[in-house]
Amino acid sequence: MGFIVEAEVSHDVVLEPPPNFSMVEQGIYRSSFPRPCNFAFLETLNLRSIIYLCPEPYPEENLEFLRSHNIRLFQFGIEGKTEPSLTTLRDSIRGALKILMDVRNHPILIHCKRGKHRTGSLVGCLRRLQNWCLPSVFEEYQHFAGIKSRSDDLKFIETFDIICLRQCLHSIIYHYQGYGSNKRLLLYGDESVRKSQIISS
Amino acid sequence: MGFIVEAEVSHDVVLEPPPNFSMVEQGIYRSSFPRPCNFAFLETLNLRSIIYLCPEPYPEENLEFLRSHNIRLFQFGIEGKTEPSLTTLRDSIRGALKILMDVRNHPILIHCKRGKHRTGSLVGCLRRLQNWCLPSVFEEYQHFAGIKSRSDDLKFIETFDIICLRQCLHSIIYHYQGYGSNKRLLLYGDESVRKSQIISS
Repeated sequence: MGFIVEAEVSHDVVLEPPPNFSMVEQGIYRSSFPRPCNFAFLETLNLRSIIYLCPEPYPEENLEFLRSHNIRLFQFGIEGKTEPSLTTLRDSIRGALKILMDVRNHPILIHCKRGKHRTGSLVGCLRRLQNWCLPSVFEEYQHFAGIKSRSDDLKFIETFDIICLRQCLHSIIYHYQGYGSNKRLLLYGDESVRKSQIISS
Repeated sequence: MGFIVEAEVSHDVVLEPPPNFSMVEQGIYRSSFPRPCNFAFLETLNLRSIIYLCPEPYPEENLEFLRSHNIRLFQFGIEGKTEPSLTTLRDSIRGALKILMDVRNHPILIHCKRGKHRTGSLVGCLRRLQNWCLPSVFEEYQHFAGIKSRSDDLKFIETFDIICLRQCLHSIIYHYQGYGSNKRLLLYGDESVRKSQIISS
């Protein structure tokens, strides 16, 4: 038996991704709420940050996992059962998008409870920013929400306006580079860009 | 208005991913059969290769897109309607895995017709190689197959044996690095590895 196969066998740990796990983009993942049985899998992602979209406090065992792996937690508490006010929801999604688009926070995992509605809404707004056509954005949302798809979420994604997205771009001074390019998702603006930002603001 | 926003507006092309599109892994994508309306989106992926899993010839307009973007086509013709023989299916999946695991072919897109069964089977075998637990592998398959999920595919993924996977590893002399690591998916073996391969074969 050769070297490679022996090495492979020695790393034969069975990994359990959280339900509804998927890669969204280079350095961006999504899932449902990770449980301790998922921690071995999460370790392989080398996460730098987590965006958590529920108002409930993060469980101690998850906090311990974060501490021991130097993972930063960004919490945006969006109510899951009662309908959040549109203003609150917009503010949370906008805040989460700014964190999500900042490559200094990558690799990053987005999750809520089931990885369907709140996570789906955030990813949907990211896709709009990436200029995906609306039917494709909706298809992806529905992929993860399944029969639990909510028309309110789809409407929210559709009406999340370009002015808001532009404000995000303005406020973080990065230049979005487009999906799948070999460049990183967002690049830090160089000096000339910073100057034009300062002038324009 | 600042520099960044103006640049963003000028790149405001609406992109239409093929149905059932998703990122599988860094440098690996999956989808249904791409049509010309999806070509602008595919351009953003900077593809180097495509794995096409149907026996039907590739349409001329798709071939022209590949030629003009220097994308290499790897075709493994698996019958979609009639049940392929298990030996034929195994050989095709094994061949496709070797191409898929070779980072020199990345970024790479896997597709069949609907991106459900043949593509799902190939991705399922990749996940087994990545040591994902079987319920997670099945969940991902079913995500994309939806109500069209086929028990034969699940059985195929489950029984696609580790010996076969090891043969893949042997034959391409790469060392698999694990999901989500910062290293590339597969690294070329160094000299000592090559020597041990030669000795072991």
